[in-house]
Amino acid sequence: MPINKVSLKEKFGCFNDYWKPKIIGEINDAHIKLVKIKGEFTWHHHDREDELFLVVKGRLLMQLRDGDITLDEGEFIIVPKGTEHCPASLGDEVHVLLMEPKTTLNTGNILNEYTVTRPERI
Amino acid sequence: MPINKVSLKEKFGCFNDYWKPKIIGEINDAHIKLVKIKGEFTWHHHDREDELFLVVKGRLLMQLRDGDITLDEGEFIIVPKGTEHCPASLGDEVHVLLMEPKTTLNTGNILNEYTVTRPERI
Repeated sequence: MPINKVSLKEKFGCFNDYWKPKIIGEINDAHIKLVKIKGEFTWHHHDREDELFLVVKGRLLMQLRDGDITLDEGEFIIVPKGTEHCPASLGDEVHVLLMEPKTTLNTGNILNEYTVTRPERI
Repeated sequence: MPINKVSLKEKFGCFNDYWKPKIIGEINDAHIKLVKIKGEFTWHHHDREDELFLVVKGRLLMQLRDGDITLDEGEFIIVPKGTEHCPASLGDEVHVLLMEPKTTLNTGNILNEYTVTRPERI
């Protein structure tokens, strides 16, 4: 398979739905994904997976049971396995790069209308 | 351990040496690292590890045996395990975010003056 570079800007231009992570890369046992978020997600945790959120555009509010953390462009947070969290946008939509094991379900231990069992590849 | 956000800009401001990856995050079995590069590295491959290079600033030349790929800010490349590669800067220094398994040695199968056996944490 040929090796290609990936442009975050180009990939973010390929979709407009919210809370639907798209796979843009595969590295060892992990996926690189992009997601656009607006409003508030659902509280959940992942039993076995740490999850990285890197803000590419906008302002992300990561709600944790111990307090909130606000992230701007160029900032990331790693939410350790077992940690309840609930991401939300502050202001307009937020563009986020995710890195997480391929086994990660976006809503973790919760199944609801936000759950995406088979993320699209773009 | 408290959960903190990490600012790429702040972390890149913490060091000035070239080709010495710094660990800035730990996620599952992988490290998130930053590196500043200038000039040309050394040809090498990793037997077991895929490696992601995301350009945060500047222009990266990723030399592969099949041809060169030029990456600008906001672009990444995943170099699959077993693939010989040699990164280099184009123009001034390049700031790169790396994601790779904790077992990854920066010079892969090669041991030379560029080898960093115990990357610093910043």
